[in-house]
Amino acid sequence: MSYQSIKEAAYEANMQLPALGLVLFTFGNVSVVDRQAGVFAIKPSGVPYTQLSPDKMVIVDFDGQTVEGALRPSSDTKTHAVLYKHWEHIGGIVHTHSTYATAWAQAQRDIPIYGTTHADHLTVDVPCAAPMNDEMIKGNYEHETGFQIMNCLKERSLSYEDVEMILVGNHAPFTWGKTADKAVYNAAVVEEVARMAYLTESIRADCPRLKDSLIRKHFERKHGPDSYYGQ
Amino acid sequence: MSYQSIKEAAYEANMQLPALGLVLFTFGNVSVVDRQAGVFAIKPSGVPYTQLSPDKMVIVDFDGQTVEGALRPSSDTKTHAVLYKHWEHIGGIVHTHSTYATAWAQAQRDIPIYGTTHADHLTVDVPCAAPMNDEMIKGNYEHETGFQIMNCLKERSLSYEDVEMILVGNHAPFTWGKTADKAVYNAAVVEEVARMAYLTESIRADCPRLKDSLIRKHFERKHGPDSYYGQ
Amino acid sequence: MSYQSIKEAAYEANMQLPALGLVLFTFGNVSVVDRQAGVFAIKPSGVPYTQLSPDKMVIVDFDGQTVEGALRPSSDTKTHAVLYKHWEHIGGIVHTHSTYATAWAQAQRDIPIYGTTHADHLTVDVPCAAPMNDEMIKGNYEHETGFQIMNCLKERSLSYEDVEMILVGNHAPFTWGKTADKAVYNAAVVEEVARMAYLTESIRADCPRLKDSLIRKHFERKHGPDSYYGQ
Amino acid sequence: MSYQSIKEAAYEANMQLPALGLVLFTFGNVSVVDRQAGVFAIKPSGVPYTQLSPDKMVIVDFDGQTVEGALRPSSDTKTHAVLYKHWEHIGGIVHTHSTYATAWAQAQRDIPIYGTTHADHLTVDVPCAAPMNDEMIKGNYEHETGFQIMNCLKERSLSYEDVEMILVGNHAPFTWGKTADKAVYNAAVVEEVARMAYLTESIRADCPRLKDSLIRKHFERKHGPDSYYGQ
Repeated sequence: MSYQSIKEAAYEANMQLPALGLVLFTFGNVSVVDRQAGVFAIKPSGVPYTQLSPDKMVIVDFDGQTVEGALRPSSDTKTHAVLYKHWEHIGGIVHTHSTYATAWAQAQRDIPIYGTTHADHLTVDVPCAAPMNDEMIKGNYEHETGFQIMNCLKERSLSYEDVEMILVGNHAPFTWGKTADKAVYNAAVVEEVARMAYLTESIRADCPRLKDSLIRKHFERKHGPDSYYGQ
Repeated sequence: MSYQSIKEAAYEANMQLPALGLVLFTFGNVSVVDRQAGVFAIKPSGVPYTQLSPDKMVIVDFDGQTVEGALRPSSDTKTHAVLYKHWEHIGGIVHTHSTYATAWAQAQRDIPIYGTTHADHLTVDVPCAAPMNDEMIKGNYEHETGFQIMNCLKERSLSYEDVEMILVGNHAPFTWGKTADKAVYNAAVVEEVARMAYLTESIRADCPRLKDSLIRKHFERKHGPDSYYGQ
Repeated sequence: MSYQSIKEAAYEANMQLPALGLVLFTFGNVSVVDRQAGVFAIKPSGVPYTQLSPDKMVIVDFDGQTVEGALRPSSDTKTHAVLYKHWEHIGGIVHTHSTYATAWAQAQRDIPIYGTTHADHLTVDVPCAAPMNDEMIKGNYEHETGFQIMNCLKERSLSYEDVEMILVGNHAPFTWGKTADKAVYNAAVVEEVARMAYLTESIRADCPRLKDSLIRKHFERKHGPDSYYGQ
Repeated sequence: MSYQSIKEAAYEANMQLPALGLVLFTFGNVSVVDRQAGVFAIKPSGVPYTQLSPDKMVIVDFDGQTVEGALRPSSDTKTHAVLYKHWEHIGGIVHTHSTYATAWAQAQRDIPIYGTTHADHLTVDVPCAAPMNDEMIKGNYEHETGFQIMNCLKERSLSYEDVEMILVGNHAPFTWGKTADKAVYNAAVVEEVARMAYLTESIRADCPRLKDSLIRKHFERKHGPDSYYGQ
């Protein structure tokens, strides 16, 4: 079994990160899952984007064990594994240290929903998961990061199918989606929404959140049963 | 009737948006009107700029009904239709979510006229229309957006021929002009003016507006009867 | 007499402005003087950079009268003319609306000297000339702008040979130099110095100016009699 | 002896600075050491990056004396010489005036450790060395800059092998590493960390530093004895 298809998809998706200006050096990774085979393809750790190729992608199972590949997988691999294991309907995951989204994560703040650009993708603030406790950090850190992400959504009664992006406090954003392309798209969206929210607060310190009626309207015209956005 | 001319013009004008850095993914659209035929050509909804071509443009009448084209038109089509129907002298309309202009819209603030870059194009603050009331939002939203734009200008006694740009509160900018090229030009101008005003307030919190004599001078040297800018 | 040499120099210098990211559309112009002929070559008004060529440059004398050229010269031509007439040792002038320098001009603030990047080029704050009085504005505006610039330096006892950049309050920067290349270089320097000063104040609200000993050292190692910068 | 190898390495490393957006004009330089020969290759002073070539690099000894080369070496050469002389295990040094790092240096502030992007490279705030006293400035300035850098680390009990980047107060960043490539990498890292910290404080004025457990975890997974980042 060659996993050629997810290797190529992971390669293509990873190469979108520098093209979209979302990564400096190797500060990011994308993975693509094959649900039938129970594995995902992920970027090798520390390899520059200019040296990537489909055959360098690493194949890993949902326990984070390498199944195929000569290189060590991304150091965030276990976070990806946990999310694939528990979230059955996602097809791809992206992690970046994109500048504005990371600044919000470092500030440990949710990104408030200030406008329709945000509401086109999400009906709530972009959640920021609290930093983990010291025991989790000292333990199986990247594995626990996956649970920290899942628990943050659970505590807020949010579904991973509705909310496809999160900030991990003090760290950086993770995004996902039904496909790797959608996860990459979400990584660019959270960066732009983070940048706009930062500017909005600078322009008006006491800026109110978007009102409910506009949130509903914009989200539903793009994602609702009667959506009329796209083809 | 093939509408070839406005399809090509709409294609060329749409392609200027990514070239000018005004759009992420598909967050923008340009339309070009044919007054004699009573229709306009507009970008199809959700189609990436890299996949556009003149023949993919959609032909729509001033009631927002598709006249020709295999694809669904931009979800903002009804806003364009309302403006073409009521403003007889415009030839093109642009909508973007450009970062700085959108941040001012999210902050629900007019962009104050702080310098001659602004005055070269506009003698007043860039108006920010209030967000619509909930009934308008739940109703024919994009249609009402057109009226919200027109009413904002009316309430301030501004003419659409003098003021070719507006922010829709919580949403983003719309610009227009006698031609689509002018509307695209205005979309870049409002983004730059928004960026400069943001920086100006950061550099000086209590910054005064530009004085009247300078506003007049700069606007008239570019647009007045004795203008001496351009060829 | 063909003025070919200054036309080509003015063309090359003008084309550097978009390459350096200092202009949007046509918001800028460069001129190059021929002292022997008593004329300068300047960008035509409102012509996009992509359509420029050496033969489109306009030849103007020091009273601002067109000597040769089919196109109308830049609307800022009289400002250039006044400066060439009174400042014998400059060879080129640049005017832009570059974003950060323009924001300081709009805020009507001098750019404080906060670091050695600034001191490498200038031993004082970048001066911001006050906006003109209403009579000067209503009168021969661009001509008066030249005097506003000269008077600002005079009032502060600054020499145009030491200080090769200024902000015109509410308007934007002007820079000059012994050559047009140096004037363009200074246009990029004032933009970068403006950006750094803006960030410096954001990072530390009460930031002190650079101390005298460092100002002297950095300026003199680049410009003093014992300079050891460059070849 | 031709020093061809370090000349080529210095050329390649210098050319990375404009590619990474870290320099305007000639505001930066990289050097590469040959420990056996007791010399380093450094960029010539004031030569634009577009005109560089390996044979233009200047060979200098650890007392700052030119050993080979037709051009004058970078005006910061003596700072490089001092660091090579005292720090036996570094292979390359970079100096830039990159915008955000320079703004922190101008503000004379350490860059606080706010997130894991920072902790991946450094367990402490990026130190900002105090500006020198006036005697040091008037004396052998660039030589003293080297000692100012070394003394800042000493006072804080930091090792140059752990901390590969510093800000020189009022001036700009210096970075180094076991290789010139690593030093260039660090120059990009300090710029990005500076930008993120600036944004973080803008988003949350009272933002706490990263907690110790996360600092340890991230640094050790990349640099510790059981590191699992990279290949």
